[in-house]
Amino acid sequence: MNLGKVVGTVVSTRKESVLDGIRFLLVRLVDADGRDTSSFVVSADAMGAGVGEMVLTAAGSSARQTSMTQNRPVDNVIMAIVDTWEVGGETKYTK
Amino acid sequence: MNLGKVVGTVVSTRKESVLDGIRFLLVRLVDADGRDTSSFVVSADAMGAGVGEMVLTAAGSSARQTSMTQNRPVDNVIMAIVDTWEVGGETKYTK
Amino acid sequence: MNLGKVVGTVVSTRKESVLDGIRFLLVRLVDADGRDTSSFVVSADAMGAGVGEMVLTAAGSSARQTSMTQNRPVDNVIMAIVDTWEVGGETKYTK
Amino acid sequence: MNLGKVVGTVVSTRKESVLDGIRFLLVRLVDADGRDTSSFVVSADAMGAGVGEMVLTAAGSSARQTSMTQNRPVDNVIMAIVDTWEVGGETKYTK
Amino acid sequence: MNLGKVVGTVVSTRKESVLDGIRFLLVRLVDADGRDTSSFVVSADAMGAGVGEMVLTAAGSSARQTSMTQNRPVDNVIMAIVDTWEVGGETKYTK
Repeated sequence: MNLGKVVGTVVSTRKESVLDGIRFLLVRLVDADGRDTSSFVVSADAMGAGVGEMVLTAAGSSARQTSMTQNRPVDNVIMAIVDTWEVGGETKYTK
Repeated sequence: MNLGKVVGTVVSTRKESVLDGIRFLLVRLVDADGRDTSSFVVSADAMGAGVGEMVLTAAGSSARQTSMTQNRPVDNVIMAIVDTWEVGGETKYTK
Repeated sequence: MNLGKVVGTVVSTRKESVLDGIRFLLVRLVDADGRDTSSFVVSADAMGAGVGEMVLTAAGSSARQTSMTQNRPVDNVIMAIVDTWEVGGETKYTK
Repeated sequence: MNLGKVVGTVVSTRKESVLDGIRFLLVRLVDADGRDTSSFVVSADAMGAGVGEMVLTAAGSSARQTSMTQNRPVDNVIMAIVDTWEVGGETKYTK
Repeated sequence: MNLGKVVGTVVSTRKESVLDGIRFLLVRLVDADGRDTSSFVVSADAMGAGVGEMVLTAAGSSARQTSMTQNRPVDNVIMAIVDTWEVGGETKYTK
């Protein structure tokens, strides 16, 4: 999984019909210290995540292992909101 | 999913027969500000996308979760046409 | 899918028995203008492609969606020979 | 699979319910000499790994081939604790 | 698939029980000329490969399409030992 920060939303009205009701969020990937990287991904929001929240995203077929995304053409999903993480005993992020 | 802009078409007459009728589009990936990157992908068009349109693409096995691409040797699909997206409250693209 | 040019062949006699009869080709990936990149992949040839031909390759589980590659330990397949492609109205490659 | 070192933990209370009880660890990828790289991944811990241990991680759908991760939205799993590895006859790491 | 050279072995006693008996090899990826790259992968050995041999590796779910790796948390497999390959009519490697 990747750590990322929700930074925006993507709106689409013309899409595969099975995608109706799924919110697509722009997630900026962060490094282990919580700093922004130049990479981002568009992720299906299975958690009701808000802009600014740190999340975990799962990619590939694993992104379809939620009731919201099952059997849908979605290759990335937010499956957890992050409360905190630490590296080497040092807290790098707290919600 | 990735954000990209449709920039061209790929024509192939000699191909796996199950691919007949699928349009292959050249999609230039863009960054979160909508600017072209140097990366591109050839994507199966499940949406009737036109050149110049911003789209969302799904990769891997997720690319086969549309009626057009199911069970076909296709690893990338356009599954949505993008209307608009915003980052940090700022609109980065509007159709 | 990726655009690439067939540049060589890989020969293996000691391999998983289900791979007997599958030709492995070396495919140099090209950019949107058809120029060689430094990346290449070894691809199973489902199309009878020849050296010098431009092809489309599918990766991952999608590479197993041909009768030749089904259920086999193959993660890349040539599923189309490219006739032509164009970007922004300009032809970038013609067979 | 990738070689990596467990360097931290990620805590999430709001997550897909099927993820309850799965520990998420921060794994720093290492090179063939065992040195840290700048890449890391968040991995589901199927082994009871501890911080500082060298591990093997499996990605993608393969990450769901453990009883802990099966059918869950998890794309990376720690499936082995590494005792030692050697390159060219030289031991690069010993637990 | 990728071309790589077996350069070492990884030993793990504490691992998912379904992995018992699978040998994990360190494979250094090579370029089209057979030269070492800085990338490597840990691969399950389905072929009885030896250190120094050039091999083909398959990644992702395709790595589970051998009797040794089926349904196991393994995302890379050696499925062929390479005898020779050539690029543009020039032999780049012979066993």
